[in-house]
Amino acid sequence: MCRLYFADIYQENIIMIVVLKANADEQKQAQLIKWLENKGVRVNIAVGEYQNVLGLIGKTENMDAALIESMEIVESVKRVSESFKRANRKFHPDDTVVEVGNVKIGGGHFAIMAGPCSVESEEQIVSVAKSVKAAGAVMLRGGAFKPRTSPYDFQGLKDEGLKLLKIARQETGLPIVTEIMNLADIHLFDDIDVLQVGARNMQNFDLLKELGKTDKPILLKRGLANTLKELLMSAEYIMANGNNNVILCERGIRTYSDYTRNTLDLSAVPMLRELTHLPIVVDPSHATGIAKLVPPMSMAAAACGADGLIIEVHNDPIHALCDGAQSLRPEEFAALVPKINAVRMAAL
Amino acid sequence: MCRLYFADIYQENIIMIVVLKANADEQKQAQLIKWLENKGVRVNIAVGEYQNVLGLIGKTENMDAALIESMEIVESVKRVSESFKRANRKFHPDDTVVEVGNVKIGGGHFAIMAGPCSVESEEQIVSVAKSVKAAGAVMLRGGAFKPRTSPYDFQGLKDEGLKLLKIARQETGLPIVTEIMNLADIHLFDDIDVLQVGARNMQNFDLLKELGKTDKPILLKRGLANTLKELLMSAEYIMANGNNNVILCERGIRTYSDYTRNTLDLSAVPMLRELTHLPIVVDPSHATGIAKLVPPMSMAAAACGADGLIIEVHNDPIHALCDGAQSLRPEEFAALVPKINAVRMAAL
Amino acid sequence: MCRLYFADIYQENIIMIVVLKANADEQKQAQLIKWLENKGVRVNIAVGEYQNVLGLIGKTENMDAALIESMEIVESVKRVSESFKRANRKFHPDDTVVEVGNVKIGGGHFAIMAGPCSVESEEQIVSVAKSVKAAGAVMLRGGAFKPRTSPYDFQGLKDEGLKLLKIARQETGLPIVTEIMNLADIHLFDDIDVLQVGARNMQNFDLLKELGKTDKPILLKRGLANTLKELLMSAEYIMANGNNNVILCERGIRTYSDYTRNTLDLSAVPMLRELTHLPIVVDPSHATGIAKLVPPMSMAAAACGADGLIIEVHNDPIHALCDGAQSLRPEEFAALVPKINAVRMAAL
Amino acid sequence: MCRLYFADIYQENIIMIVVLKANADEQKQAQLIKWLENKGVRVNIAVGEYQNVLGLIGKTENMDAALIESMEIVESVKRVSESFKRANRKFHPDDTVVEVGNVKIGGGHFAIMAGPCSVESEEQIVSVAKSVKAAGAVMLRGGAFKPRTSPYDFQGLKDEGLKLLKIARQETGLPIVTEIMNLADIHLFDDIDVLQVGARNMQNFDLLKELGKTDKPILLKRGLANTLKELLMSAEYIMANGNNNVILCERGIRTYSDYTRNTLDLSAVPMLRELTHLPIVVDPSHATGIAKLVPPMSMAAAACGADGLIIEVHNDPIHALCDGAQSLRPEEFAALVPKINAVRMAAL
Repeated sequence: MCRLYFADIYQENIIMIVVLKANADEQKQAQLIKWLENKGVRVNIAVGEYQNVLGLIGKTENMDAALIESMEIVESVKRVSESFKRANRKFHPDDTVVEVGNVKIGGGHFAIMAGPCSVESEEQIVSVAKSVKAAGAVMLRGGAFKPRTSPYDFQGLKDEGLKLLKIARQETGLPIVTEIMNLADIHLFDDIDVLQVGARNMQNFDLLKELGKTDKPILLKRGLANTLKELLMSAEYIMANGNNNVILCERGIRTYSDYTRNTLDLSAVPMLRELTHLPIVVDPSHATGIAKLVPPMSMAAAACGADGLIIEVHNDPIHALCDGAQSLRPEEFAALVPKINAVRMAAL
Repeated sequence: MCRLYFADIYQENIIMIVVLKANADEQKQAQLIKWLENKGVRVNIAVGEYQNVLGLIGKTENMDAALIESMEIVESVKRVSESFKRANRKFHPDDTVVEVGNVKIGGGHFAIMAGPCSVESEEQIVSVAKSVKAAGAVMLRGGAFKPRTSPYDFQGLKDEGLKLLKIARQETGLPIVTEIMNLADIHLFDDIDVLQVGARNMQNFDLLKELGKTDKPILLKRGLANTLKELLMSAEYIMANGNNNVILCERGIRTYSDYTRNTLDLSAVPMLRELTHLPIVVDPSHATGIAKLVPPMSMAAAACGADGLIIEVHNDPIHALCDGAQSLRPEEFAALVPKINAVRMAAL
Repeated sequence: MCRLYFADIYQENIIMIVVLKANADEQKQAQLIKWLENKGVRVNIAVGEYQNVLGLIGKTENMDAALIESMEIVESVKRVSESFKRANRKFHPDDTVVEVGNVKIGGGHFAIMAGPCSVESEEQIVSVAKSVKAAGAVMLRGGAFKPRTSPYDFQGLKDEGLKLLKIARQETGLPIVTEIMNLADIHLFDDIDVLQVGARNMQNFDLLKELGKTDKPILLKRGLANTLKELLMSAEYIMANGNNNVILCERGIRTYSDYTRNTLDLSAVPMLRELTHLPIVVDPSHATGIAKLVPPMSMAAAACGADGLIIEVHNDPIHALCDGAQSLRPEEFAALVPKINAVRMAAL
Repeated sequence: MCRLYFADIYQENIIMIVVLKANADEQKQAQLIKWLENKGVRVNIAVGEYQNVLGLIGKTENMDAALIESMEIVESVKRVSESFKRANRKFHPDDTVVEVGNVKIGGGHFAIMAGPCSVESEEQIVSVAKSVKAAGAVMLRGGAFKPRTSPYDFQGLKDEGLKLLKIARQETGLPIVTEIMNLADIHLFDDIDVLQVGARNMQNFDLLKELGKTDKPILLKRGLANTLKELLMSAEYIMANGNNNVILCERGIRTYSDYTRNTLDLSAVPMLRELTHLPIVVDPSHATGIAKLVPPMSMAAAACGADGLIIEVHNDPIHALCDGAQSLRPEEFAALVPKINAVRMAAL
C-alpha cells in the first residue's frame, strides 16, 4: 500500500494535486518537481501506468494553480482544501460572537438593524431611530457616505451625516452602523460602532487591510457577483490584519432576474454557517429593491438561520406621498418584528 | 391637455410606447404609422418639440419590439403591460386552487410532496411512500423518466417505474407526481395524478401545448436561467390550450455560486404571488444539491409564503453507507415536517 | 515511492479522486471501499498521516460524485478526466468534416449559412435564397417551426414552410438548414439537409436520442445558460446513438448584458476547438439581436477560428420600412461576405 | 392631436415616463404631480380613457425611478434616454483620441500595450519591454500594486515596482500603464503615463473622482458583473470631475463558463462604439486566463473594431519550465502582432 504523507492540514499545510499528462517527458517532470520544491513545497509522486500524479504538501495557498496547469506536461491541478483559514470553521469550530456595546450578534444572538437608506436630517434620523427602537431594532443603520452609480446622484451628507447619526444614538442608545467608502476617511469613523463595507468595495483590498488594523466590528457585504469563497477571502483580509470582528452580509447577487433588483441568495446563510464561524446577516431591502418583498424575505432569512437582519425603514412626512421603493414605514416594521421573532423560534 | 385614449387594458388591449428619434423624417414617420396600423393596432401620436412618441393600442402582444426598435427613425420601444394574460393576477385576482384527489394546493392550502429522486424498486418506493405519508406528506414524488446530462447515466425505469409508483399509490393513497419528458409518452401518463415538466423542458413548447390539451394538474419547473416572465409565459402555453391546473415550481437558477448546485431564488415566491394567481411550490433539494441545506431552505420557503414543497426523501438499506447527496432520510424528513408547519403558521 | 496504477485513460477508464476526512473512522472507510468496488471500480488507497485519498479506476463516468461527497467520512471528490468521449478530441485528434451535399464544414472548410428568421412565403424565401447564394452563402437557413416564448406569437408555417424551403433549394441548389422542435415531427424532415436543434431544446434528451438514430447532419445550438461541457454532453447523446454528423453552434448566453440580447461567447470557439473535433459555427444574429452588430461579430468569429456562420438575412419589399431587428438586408450581407473571407485568411 | 413639449434632449433635459395605474385616485395624482414639480421637473399629462401617463421633462437623471414606481398609484416608470452625458456619443459625435506621449489611441489609432502581469525585477521588466517594443507594442504594461483575492498571495512590489517600470520606460521609450488601487497612493503615480483602474475598483467612486481631478489618461476596466451602462457611468465620474482622457477596457465578465476564467464580451466593443466616443480596448489575457486563447481572441477583438489590446507577455529564464497560465512568451507575441494588424486591416 502506498502512502502520501500529508502534513497537518489543521495547522499550516494545504494540499494540492497535480495530474501529469500521460507519458509526460521524464526530464520535464524532474524539472517541474525541482521547481515546485524550490517554491517551498514537498512533492510526493504517485506513479501510474500511463500517467503520474503529484501531491504537494506545504504552503500551497501561495501557489498559482492556473500557472502550473499551463505547463506543457500538466493535465490538471486541484486544490484539496480551502485557502481561507482564520474565517474557516474547520479550524475554529465555535461560533464567533461580535459585541457592539451591549448588543451581541452570532452564536445564538439575533440582532435587527434598521434605519433609512440615507441620513437626511436630524429630525428624520432621530424620529426613525426612536421608531425602530420601539419596534425592537437593536442597532440603527443609515448612510452618510453613499455609493451611487451616477456622479449626478445625491452622494450623502458625509461627515454631517455621521454627526446626525451620533445625535440619534445619544437620543436612543442604539449603536450605529454606517458605510465607509474610502480609507482616507477612516479618522471620521472613530466614534462609529460598526463600519459597513459595501458590496462594490468588497474587493477594495486596501480598505479591508486598513479596517483590519482597527478593532471595530466590520459589516462586510457580499459583492454583486462574488462567490462565498471570495467573501470569506475578503473577511480573511480583515482578520489577517488583526481584526476578528467581522459580520458577513448577504444582500443579493446579480442574475437575470426580471422583477427583483437582485437575487437574494438565502442558501448562502446555512452554507456559510458550515464554512465559517462568523455571524451572518441578511439585507432583504437592497436584495429585492421592493418594500412589499421585505417582510416575506425577512421571515425567510430568520427561518434559515440568519444571525440578524438589516432593514430599511423610512419615515418622512415631507415625502408622504411615497414611501421609498424598498423602505418599510415604521408601522410596517413594527408589525414585522414580532413575526420575524416568532418564525425564528419556530425554526430553531 | 392632450389625450392618449388607451383602450381597456383589463380586457384585451396591451399598450406599447414607441419613442421616435429627434427630428425624425416626417414621411418615414407616416409610413411607420401606416405599417403599425396595418398590423392591427391603433396609433396615438404625442408630438414633442423635438421628438414624438407613439402610443400603440390593441393586440400589441404580437408586435416585435426589437424589430420596431431597429427602424431608422425609432429611438426606443417600451411595453407598458405584461404579455401574459391567463396567468396574470391582474385579470384573475383570486388565487387558483389546484385539486389532486382530496389534496388541495394554493389559496391557503399547503402541500408537501416527497419521495425519492428515482424510482428504483417496488420495495424502495412503497417503503418511502409509507414513511413520507406517516410524516405528513400528501403526495408522492418519484422519477421514472430521468433527464440526465450524460447519455451514459441511468435514464430511469421508465414505464416500469410508473407501474411501481401506482403500486405505491395503491398502498398509501398518496397521489403521485412524476416527470414527463416527451409528448410521445403521454398515453403512459393517463393514470398519473400530477405531470411534472422539468427545468430543461420549460420551453419545450410542443410538450406544453400537448399538456394544455389534458385536464391533468401540471407541475411546471422554472428553467435553469429563465426569468419569472418566461416561466409565466410557459404556464400561459398550457393555459392557452385549455388547462388551468398549473402549479409553478422554483427549483434554483444557475449563477456563479461556488458551493451550492444552483441558487434558490426564494424571492420569486412573493414576487410570483403578486404577478399570478397560480400556486407556487419550492424544490429545495434540486436547488441546493446538499441534504444539509434542505431543512433550512424548506423552512425559509414556508416563511416567505410558498404553497408547498417538493422534497427528496430516500430510504435504501442497501446503500446505508450513503444517503444521497441531496436526499433526506425518512427520519430527517419526519423531524422536519412539524417545523415547516410551525414556521408557516408563525409567518401567516 | 508509492504507486497508483491508473488504467488506460485513453481506452475506457476514467479516474476519480476521493479525499477522505482527517481521522476518518476506519470501519466506515472499509465499508466505503467495498461499496465502491461493488459499483465496479477498482480502488487504490493513498494513506496520509492524517487523511487518506482514494483513487478510483474504471467506469467512473457513471459514479455520482455529489452522492459520494455527501458521505460522512468524505471531504471532497474530484474527477480527473472528462465524461464525454465520442466528442472528445483527446480520443479522436483529427477534425471531423461534416458533408452536406457538396458542402463541407470543419477541418479547414468554412461555410456561411444565411436566410430569414422565418419562412414567410415562396416569393420571400426564393428571393432571399437567390440573394444569399449570389453573395456567397453555401446553405440556406429559414425557420418553419418556430419556438416562441409567448403562445400568442407567430409559430411558423410548419410543414408548409418546409415545402417552401424545398422549393428554394430546387431553385438555387442550396442545401437547407431548419429547426426541428419535436421528435413526433421527424418524418416531415426526411428530405431536409441539416436539422437544427434550438437553444431551448439543447437538453431535450429524447429529441437528441432520436436524432442520433438518423444519419442527418445536426446543427446543435448551445443552450441559453449551458456550459461547454453540457453542450458536448448533448452532442454525445446524438453520437452515442450512432450519428457523428454534429455541428456545434455558439449563439450567445444569458448574462446581465444591458444592450445586447445575449452575450456572444466567442472564446467558446477556440476553447471548443481544443476540447472536441466537431465543427463549430457561430450565430451572431441571435446572439446580439441587433443587425448593426452582426458584421463586426461575424468578422470576429472568423478571426478566432469558427468553421462557419449562420446569419439572418431578410428581404421583404412589403415591410420595406423596417429591416428586422437582427436581420441584414441582402446588400448588407453581400458587402459583408468578402470581408469575412478576408479576415479569415488574415487570421489563419 | 396632443402635444408633449419635450425640451431639448441634446442639451440638458432627460425624459422619463410615468405610467399611472388604471383609475388612479385623482387627488393622489395631483399630489404626485406637485411632488414631481417640487423636485424641479416639468410634468406633462397624457390622459387616457382608463389610465394616464406622465411625461417628465428636465433633470430627471436625479429622480429615483424605483421610488416613484413604489408609489401606490404608479404602474411603471421608464427612462427614455440615457443618464450618462459626457461619455455619450449622442452629445459628442466625434471619436475621442487619447494621447499618451507620441502614442494615440481611438479615432482610428490602434495601440497594443504589452508586458508582464507583475513587475518582478529590473532585468525582467527591461527585457520584456525591449521584446514587446521590438514586436510592435507601443506601451508597456506591468503591475506594481496587485489586487489579489487572497491576503496570502503576492501583493506586488509596490513603489519599488513603479521605479522599475520607469527604468524600463527610460530604456525603451515606451509609455507605461499600471494599476492604482488606492487614492492615498496617487502621489506615487505623478510620473506614470496611464493609470489603470482594475475591475474590482470600477465602482470605487472616491478613487474615480480623485482620478477625475488629474489630467492623466485613465484605463478603466469593466467590473466582473457590470453592465455597459455602469461602465459608462463610472467613466462619467472621471469626466464629471474634469478629466476626459478615459480609455474603456473590456476584460471578461463572470458567467457560468466552465473552461475559461471569464467570458470575454466582445460584442461590447461595437455596442460601446455606438454609445460612446471614448476609445475601447480589450484584455484577452485576463478574460480567458489561458495563453492559448489569447491569439484568437486578440484577432477577434481587432476584427470587431477595438482601438487597442492589452496583452500579457512574460519572459522569465528562471521559470523556463512554465510560461504563465495566461501570458504569451515574447516570440509568441512577436508572431501575433502582424496577424492582429492584418486582421484589423481586412476588417476596416
